[in-house]
Amino acid sequence: MASANQAGARLPETFNGAESLVATLVASGIEVCFANPGTSEMHFVSALDRIPGMRPVLCLFEGVVTGAADGYARMAGKPACTLLHLGPGFANGMANLHNARKAQSPVVNVIGDHATYHERYNAPLTSNVTGFAESISHWVRRPRSPRTVAADAARAVRAACEAPGRIASLILPADTAWLAAERPAPRLEPCVPAPVSDAAVEAAARALADGGRTAILLRGAALHGPGLEAAGRIAAKTGAVLFCDTFTPRRRAGAGAPVVEKLAYRGQAVLQRLAEFDRLLLVGGEPPVSFFAYPDQEGWLTPPDCAILTLAHAHEDGNAALAMLAEAVGATASGAGPGAVARIVAPFDPPALPAPSANGPLTAEAVMRVVAALLPEEAIVADEGITSTLPHAGLLGTAAPHDYLALTGGSIGGILPLSTGAAIGAPGRKVVALEGDGSAMYTLQALWTQAREKLAVVTVIYANRSYAVLNQELRLVQAASKGELALSLLDLHNPSLDWVHLAEGMGVPAVRAETAPAFADAFAEALRGSGPRLIEAVI
Amino acid sequence: MASANQAGARLPETFNGAESLVATLVASGIEVCFANPGTSEMHFVSALDRIPGMRPVLCLFEGVVTGAADGYARMAGKPACTLLHLGPGFANGMANLHNARKAQSPVVNVIGDHATYHERYNAPLTSNVTGFAESISHWVRRPRSPRTVAADAARAVRAACEAPGRIASLILPADTAWLAAERPAPRLEPCVPAPVSDAAVEAAARALADGGRTAILLRGAALHGPGLEAAGRIAAKTGAVLFCDTFTPRRRAGAGAPVVEKLAYRGQAVLQRLAEFDRLLLVGGEPPVSFFAYPDQEGWLTPPDCAILTLAHAHEDGNAALAMLAEAVGATASGAGPGAVARIVAPFDPPALPAPSANGPLTAEAVMRVVAALLPEEAIVADEGITSTLPHAGLLGTAAPHDYLALTGGSIGGILPLSTGAAIGAPGRKVVALEGDGSAMYTLQALWTQAREKLAVVTVIYANRSYAVLNQELRLVQAASKGELALSLLDLHNPSLDWVHLAEGMGVPAVRAETAPAFADAFAEALRGSGPRLIEAVI
Repeated sequence: MASANQAGARLPETFNGAESLVATLVASGIEVCFANPGTSEMHFVSALDRIPGMRPVLCLFEGVVTGAADGYARMAGKPACTLLHLGPGFANGMANLHNARKAQSPVVNVIGDHATYHERYNAPLTSNVTGFAESISHWVRRPRSPRTVAADAARAVRAACEAPGRIASLILPADTAWLAAERPAPRLEPCVPAPVSDAAVEAAARALADGGRTAILLRGAALHGPGLEAAGRIAAKTGAVLFCDTFTPRRRAGAGAPVVEKLAYRGQAVLQRLAEFDRLLLVGGEPPVSFFAYPDQEGWLTPPDCAILTLAHAHEDGNAALAMLAEAVGATASGAGPGAVARIVAPFDPPALPAPSANGPLTAEAVMRVVAALLPEEAIVADEGITSTLPHAGLLGTAAPHDYLALTGGSIGGILPLSTGAAIGAPGRKVVALEGDGSAMYTLQALWTQAREKLAVVTVIYANRSYAVLNQELRLVQAASKGELALSLLDLHNPSLDWVHLAEGMGVPAVRAETAPAFADAFAEALRGSGPRLIEAVI
Repeated sequence: MASANQAGARLPETFNGAESLVATLVASGIEVCFANPGTSEMHFVSALDRIPGMRPVLCLFEGVVTGAADGYARMAGKPACTLLHLGPGFANGMANLHNARKAQSPVVNVIGDHATYHERYNAPLTSNVTGFAESISHWVRRPRSPRTVAADAARAVRAACEAPGRIASLILPADTAWLAAERPAPRLEPCVPAPVSDAAVEAAARALADGGRTAILLRGAALHGPGLEAAGRIAAKTGAVLFCDTFTPRRRAGAGAPVVEKLAYRGQAVLQRLAEFDRLLLVGGEPPVSFFAYPDQEGWLTPPDCAILTLAHAHEDGNAALAMLAEAVGATASGAGPGAVARIVAPFDPPALPAPSANGPLTAEAVMRVVAALLPEEAIVADEGITSTLPHAGLLGTAAPHDYLALTGGSIGGILPLSTGAAIGAPGRKVVALEGDGSAMYTLQALWTQAREKLAVVTVIYANRSYAVLNQELRLVQAASKGELALSLLDLHNPSLDWVHLAEGMGVPAVRAETAPAFADAFAEALRGSGPRLIEAVI
């Protein structure tokens, strides 16, 4: 008998493996599939019409697929699935899976593979798919029979959703997709984050009552869930200072959000900043470390005299823990008092727009001023500007309320795909992507998907025509020479990239801005549009 | 005492790890480094000015780095090195390393990693680099001390050059690059292909003398080395027919080259073609298998009644084996006779150019006719047109003498990087890259490197605005439906890619052609230029 699935539509009487997979994914709550399919995925593709409830989103490169799945998960709070073509297709998606892994985003990868009986032939596309997948996933399974595909798919979703969010990879041999299979599997009991113990909350409360200065480092869901507001009350009540990492998966920010100070990118600045604190209270993560090692510099960034205390580990419920801690220290919503609230919550005080007469060359600071001034309420800012945005991102602190997403794993270029997926994960909200010109080249194909899906993403390319951060790095690592060959590898002139052409080549309307007023006009105009736009900000 | 290196320039007195690495690579014969560096590679970058002899070529995405290294190796006959940034940088290069691996191209990867003492911190860019590298490389080493870097580098080059060509990956922790190191290591004795046994040659000669029809399947170096000419004589003398795979790493073709028949892409056509043969003689590889498995189709493509005999395995010297076999069957250069030579060598007989009045829509066949008609002598044709070129590539058989490179591993989009590296590996020769619009999107960043390096690459994009091959595949795998969602994943309209804009955005002059005469004019004009050009052929 035909049955109805989550989407309320009728399911077929019989299922091949691919259909049982799609139906199980839909039943498990997966609604979006970012896809770059090939021959071995044709049955999955075909199943999308037979099994209602899954929205396929075509991407023209697999790094877009996985980066978009990361952005989707960050905003939707649940996984999308990816559809990838054998080992090389998965490999192309690995760099942004690395970012997703570091963001603790749940992702379910479906990787088509050769039929089980074709492996032995070492055909051109044969590779060590399982080895590729295991080197970066938390969970990998490769069914050998179509009869287990549905159950394996349900387990993959559950594995991806295990707190705080994991990479699950299901490798699907082509014959397990096309042969007769079982009926779809039901959704498995969803995982929930582990509760923190009363003892951990009591220890944190005792520490806060002990005197001395406390830094609270927030990570994961506590940066955008109800725990953030509780953390703000704790800070107001106890004088503790809230911090977050330089690069956060998702952070609630702007007017009305508790003030959270971003740790600096440079390790020495972090050590200096934390020097005044007697203890570091961790919510959702590990102590801070430097991004890279440098000769003669410390990589462990907690000062020696600063005690480390953990309220919640990454797999635990940091939001609930903060609510419990607020209660324990008497920082209740009513107890904090209006003065305290004013101290900890950012005001709405965006920067002024540049004067129309300000016709000097555009600067990175002026770009951020304009973005902060014009940012719509409930926008999503996806920021990978590095040298162009790190010094100025503080300007967003008093802009309209927004969510702020960063590149978490250091795998360059993730922001264009990330903003694409974020737009699909949070329909109706504007996405502003801030990206350097060097970084944007890694997965620029994301723009095509933005155009096809008519996503409200405004991309700002900081065109400084160099790998600017590497000029700093060359000095910091005390490299011996800055000779002609070395500098040629950091320079992106000759030829300069033309981002207006590149965007238009993929169907995204684009303009170039070379002064602050011109950028302000272009940004305002881009926000008025309903689809994607790109602005090349020449700085 | 300062010493001179291979390039005749003076070396410094002392070396850090990166300098000892670069000097060793240069001493081992590596002249070109395709690079996309980051912080952990800054000492390598800096060493390039201090140690003469290495040409760095910047690529804006790691898939370009590895694909170019593949193309370079195919034409230069020796490895380039790559310079990649930690796990994600290597991951981005893996898909084209897969193609290189299947092409049996030697490649030496240098992968910068965190300092040895920084690993423990699980910083954002920390990943399982060794796992990534091991899943696709033949040889992996990660020195823990700067003192072994030089020796490890020499071993990496030797490992890459092991016949028939391998992927060697050297993971270089940042501190092993910046700390004091030993002097450069000398070049290790190069590997040479193993000689085939007299017994194998005698067995092949006996078989050829036995009567019955023989198919000789040529792979690897025998397709462009002196063995090819010997194979032609053997064919003329014995009536054997020469074959090659659909996708060959490098093949000598066009006028004057022995006629080698390309096996069809579709397995059933191969089975049919080989049905008339009593034996299959293998030179340099395994028996043919189908690219993919399909329901109810055979993947093993040697007919049951056809005996399989191996003259040379992949690691053996197929060129020498063919010369020995020619001698054994009496197919000497003088013995074959002029009539026989005429039978086995392709004439120079290029197709006619389209009439200037032929103003109907451009077709894929017309594109290939023009390419074959105008192909310059000693051009390099790099072909990944799939549906657009497979049916028409035979037209090149009577074009001017050329080398023909194909996508070997099925990892789509490799041809743009491949042609970039081929141009650097064979300076002074024109490169013609034939690529589909869907495929070209995977590593389009190659165009920027072509522009920067002023490479003589003419890229033809077959703009059919679809993943055309997948429309065929959807039918072949007997997928149940071709519904709207399924078809949306194969279609590249909405929006159409504009390759003129994309190319110009990266500094490559480009034009669009919509009729055969317009394409002929554009192609002739592009060949007259000295740098890269792109033609969007709308078919």
